[in-house]
Amino acid sequence: MKLLDLYAKMKGDLNRIEQQLEKSVTSDHALMSETSLHLLKAGGKRIRPVFVLLSGKFGDYRLDVLERVAVPLELIHMASLVHDDVIDDAETRRGQMTVKSKWDNRIAMYTGDYIYAKALTIVTELPNPHIHQILSKAMVEMCIGEMEQIRDFFNTEQSVRQYLLRIRRKTALLIATSCQLGAVAANADRVTANRLYRFGYNVGMAFQIRDDVLDLCGTEKQLGKPPGSDIRQGNMTLPVLLALREEAVRDKLLQAIARIRESDGTDGTDEAIRLIRASRGIAAAEEMADRYIAKSLAALERLPDIPAKRDLIEIAHFIGKRNY
Amino acid sequence: MKLLDLYAKMKGDLNRIEQQLEKSVTSDHALMSETSLHLLKAGGKRIRPVFVLLSGKFGDYRLDVLERVAVPLELIHMASLVHDDVIDDAETRRGQMTVKSKWDNRIAMYTGDYIYAKALTIVTELPNPHIHQILSKAMVEMCIGEMEQIRDFFNTEQSVRQYLLRIRRKTALLIATSCQLGAVAANADRVTANRLYRFGYNVGMAFQIRDDVLDLCGTEKQLGKPPGSDIRQGNMTLPVLLALREEAVRDKLLQAIARIRESDGTDGTDEAIRLIRASRGIAAAEEMADRYIAKSLAALERLPDIPAKRDLIEIAHFIGKRNY
Repeated sequence: MKLLDLYAKMKGDLNRIEQQLEKSVTSDHALMSETSLHLLKAGGKRIRPVFVLLSGKFGDYRLDVLERVAVPLELIHMASLVHDDVIDDAETRRGQMTVKSKWDNRIAMYTGDYIYAKALTIVTELPNPHIHQILSKAMVEMCIGEMEQIRDFFNTEQSVRQYLLRIRRKTALLIATSCQLGAVAANADRVTANRLYRFGYNVGMAFQIRDDVLDLCGTEKQLGKPPGSDIRQGNMTLPVLLALREEAVRDKLLQAIARIRESDGTDGTDEAIRLIRASRGIAAAEEMADRYIAKSLAALERLPDIPAKRDLIEIAHFIGKRNY
Repeated sequence: MKLLDLYAKMKGDLNRIEQQLEKSVTSDHALMSETSLHLLKAGGKRIRPVFVLLSGKFGDYRLDVLERVAVPLELIHMASLVHDDVIDDAETRRGQMTVKSKWDNRIAMYTGDYIYAKALTIVTELPNPHIHQILSKAMVEMCIGEMEQIRDFFNTEQSVRQYLLRIRRKTALLIATSCQLGAVAANADRVTANRLYRFGYNVGMAFQIRDDVLDLCGTEKQLGKPPGSDIRQGNMTLPVLLALREEAVRDKLLQAIARIRESDGTDGTDEAIRLIRASRGIAAAEEMADRYIAKSLAALERLPDIPAKRDLIEIAHFIGKRNY
């Protein structure tokens, strides 16, 4: 089965999530609705809702309950994107103008704040306080991850471990939480919820590594933005750190990165991309992503063999693939 | 009794809140701790915790429960200040450097995000999901209020009603929520919680109006920043809107505001302040604040005559006073 088939199969329920996402940000205030909807309409893979719904299949699947977890998780992700765009000074995302370029930085900041808060009002409609706690803790970790990313900008001496800890907080924990909360909201038992959490965590790590590789190897068409946007802003991703370990590459790459820094990103990016692509960094990063995918599959092994399990395996394989 | 006596009387419990505030932002991450603590150490009146604790006296007063409402409310207020400082381009607050001037705008944005999220993890330790919902809804309204404030910058045609709706969201609802949640967390009955909410709402409105008046009439020493910071950034507060209604003032004031706008706040502020001070705007705004104070006192009337009630009356009178 292809990933598109999976989306097709889940279409009814995902449409409902889409409606609820839209509803959640269209009522309180005209300008808020406009900015938030702009972002919503730009689309996205809705991978967090997909994980919530599939994980919910391991318990009592009730869409009216699961949507109160899926919608907040996607909103939190969206809010973080709005704030990222302020930081990254991004003019476009997914080929569309960002909130900060269409309106301004101040509007983007408050739009993000609003979407965060809105996410929490929706999850708190569920009576289980444990769910509220898990979600707000995931949000704390994500914010720390975002902060760490800035702190580590242009730090060419950071370890691979530091990178992994950062993407764990920035990306993997929210995906792990999506899987966990889908199970918890569906009253699945704790062991099941923990296995799904572990699945999500490892898939999330692989997902971010692949995303970081893609930013260096993808085309502008694939990415919806020019390649190299990470390194241009000083984000030292895994392929960069691994390339820096290579004797023959290190000095030249350090010089290119220094040029990027000095020129505020206008110079040195193409050279850095060329050097990294020619290094072992890309392949080594992909191997690491593969290992996370293998771990994610292992976490699923002892779960009951329901169709949702096969769908999760499918997604893991898809994320693990070399080209998408 | 003076307000200082009230703080002295509550000292033990407020110290506990202060400790918990500090603890809440010092563990997860070094840079986060540093930026958040910097803000915390700058102090503040802790008016929201005071309202939580006093309202808690109308039920079963348990500090270990009430602190899980008081700390989040103060944190949400603090987070909004960090984000305000980004917007306002403020170099100092309460005589101290702001997070954005000591670090930078990006750090300030994520520090604010982190503090918001942290606030929610603390309140979710309480088992009552209704409390989580009330708090997150208050946060939504506050964010909308902040957004409205930007939208209305330099809008000299806005109505007084528009101003009142904005400060309701931006300030009054969070203070109302402080009073309400103190009562709810202490298991006070609904009627009591609603009366305290109404008290807090009206006190909050008066508080913001007085704050807006003070920004025009106070000295740099009183304010910890130069006067006129609102009008300099285009925030049309109540005294400004009321002064604009005066035939003899209107044209000159509009010109001064236009100069502020054109010069990005470097020119026209002193002239605008002078015109507003000489107008009826200040006195009329103060009268409006007085009416909100009267309403806040009316809301307390049918509550039991316990010491906390007299303390709330004291605070309301203090906020209503012409000079502080």
